[in-house]
Amino acid sequence: MRIVVSLGGNALGKNPIEQKQLLIQVAKPIVELIKEGHEVVIAHGNGPQVGMINLAFSESNSTPNMPFPECGAMSQGYIGYHMQNAIGNELTAQNIDKTIASIVTQVIVDENDEAFQNPRKPIGSFYTLEESKVLEETMNYIMVEDSGRGYRRVVPSPMPIDVKEKAVIASLLKEGHIVITVGGGGIPVIDNNGQLEGVAAVIDKDNASAKLAELINADMLVILTAVDNVYINFGKDNSEALTNVSIERIESLIKENHFAPGSMLPKINATLKFAKTGKISVIASLNNAKEAFKLEAGTIIK
Amino acid sequence: MRIVVSLGGNALGKNPIEQKQLLIQVAKPIVELIKEGHEVVIAHGNGPQVGMINLAFSESNSTPNMPFPECGAMSQGYIGYHMQNAIGNELTAQNIDKTIASIVTQVIVDENDEAFQNPRKPIGSFYTLEESKVLEETMNYIMVEDSGRGYRRVVPSPMPIDVKEKAVIASLLKEGHIVITVGGGGIPVIDNNGQLEGVAAVIDKDNASAKLAELINADMLVILTAVDNVYINFGKDNSEALTNVSIERIESLIKENHFAPGSMLPKINATLKFAKTGKISVIASLNNAKEAFKLEAGTIIK
Repeated sequence: MRIVVSLGGNALGKNPIEQKQLLIQVAKPIVELIKEGHEVVIAHGNGPQVGMINLAFSESNSTPNMPFPECGAMSQGYIGYHMQNAIGNELTAQNIDKTIASIVTQVIVDENDEAFQNPRKPIGSFYTLEESKVLEETMNYIMVEDSGRGYRRVVPSPMPIDVKEKAVIASLLKEGHIVITVGGGGIPVIDNNGQLEGVAAVIDKDNASAKLAELINADMLVILTAVDNVYINFGKDNSEALTNVSIERIESLIKENHFAPGSMLPKINATLKFAKTGKISVIASLNNAKEAFKLEAGTIIK
Repeated sequence: MRIVVSLGGNALGKNPIEQKQLLIQVAKPIVELIKEGHEVVIAHGNGPQVGMINLAFSESNSTPNMPFPECGAMSQGYIGYHMQNAIGNELTAQNIDKTIASIVTQVIVDENDEAFQNPRKPIGSFYTLEESKVLEETMNYIMVEDSGRGYRRVVPSPMPIDVKEKAVIASLLKEGHIVITVGGGGIPVIDNNGQLEGVAAVIDKDNASAKLAELINADMLVILTAVDNVYINFGKDNSEALTNVSIERIESLIKENHFAPGSMLPKINATLKFAKTGKISVIASLNNAKEAFKLEAGTIIK
């Protein structure tokens, strides 16, 4: 099977030391999956990591205004290196002769996506009202007050419509390699008459993973997150973990508002889109990754 | 022909705006080369870029001690993104249906390389004597006084012995793609019983390019730099540009100390090693890239 595994940026820690340690653990179930002969693509988030990079630049005297797509590209190099190193080392330890590589990846978004009219995704540091006014004037940033903690820049979160490097990814899988791609949802670019241009935006990494899974004709999409299952009545006494659910059931549960818009709902929408193409989608915790890959844990949507 | 093109980091500008503009120009001769049906791999330096990243982190309050291999990985993402974007856009403009991708690349060095006993490559910011003493004590950095401008960290510059992702690069070429790799000479790693570990070091990008060219069985290595040719008696009245030279001639000119140890000599040594395997090496200026690819400019070593 061709499997896309989507890993949250929060699972990767807050600094290089944490990230290295955590990835040694993440590598184990991934290598189990590779050992079973599957074609594996790993997509990952970059929230805390691109935040760290963006913050360091904005605090520096030398290059305070590093553009956001470039920070995203740096995060792909930074996370990709640790991830391919950890998985590569585990492959070597288990005498598996496979190579894994991270691909710097541009994901195309529609410049007419309504998200561009309504930027809502906060990124980077917190600023005072005065500082935020300066940034609005000098940098054309859109700044909003964020939960009483100060002012932050917001960027749009448009839907992914294509992955520029999809043919490279498909070739590598065909040749038996393992691929790390669409890091942080990909570097967002718009297509201006065939000329791709980076834009300050954040593509949801689960949407990017689902789009990639569709484009490379994957058989399964596994989203690894912090919770073991998708729940109905989450956080209440009558909460219930979903194991196997049909597309119809999930759609009616969405209508009943069982899933939090900021966290579980986007994951479900991403997996649902892929499941509708006749493929398998799984949402499970990173801890249960090994079992989830065998469809023995998590919430399976078919 | 399979061709490795090695591009200096100084040709890429000092900030993201400069880099984007410069790469639009660099893309043109590269796309000419692709149009002629060659298999093309692009290696590049990262001196000013990894310096910029390292400096921004060291100036930040939040993450002042980002390790050097991680900064190198970020520079691969940062430069790779702009380079694949510029070349991809030029390919699209010329209706050439090829995909280019940057590969995060680890280059293996020998931990017994004598360079580790004698770190000489200055990296990052300048510090006062007092600051440098603190860094020596707290970070185990080796600090040296640099030309009266202050104290700087020095790291070793070991020789590359293998490229971890070489099979990925070979597969992509076989499948008709264009590859950007060994950015900044590659992320330096040592092989500790099969477990690759990042080390604070800088691999010369021309040595890394020559090693890669050898490993992927390339036919030609082209080093693009700031000067049109290799010169004998450089800077003197009787200076002479070399066009076609044999391995024997270059070796005797090296013995006569015609080439500066810090600039042209390492390039010549890198190309010489590759030329000795029976292949063609070229050293030329970026401005003459188009002609150099046809062996109509630069210094050709056979």
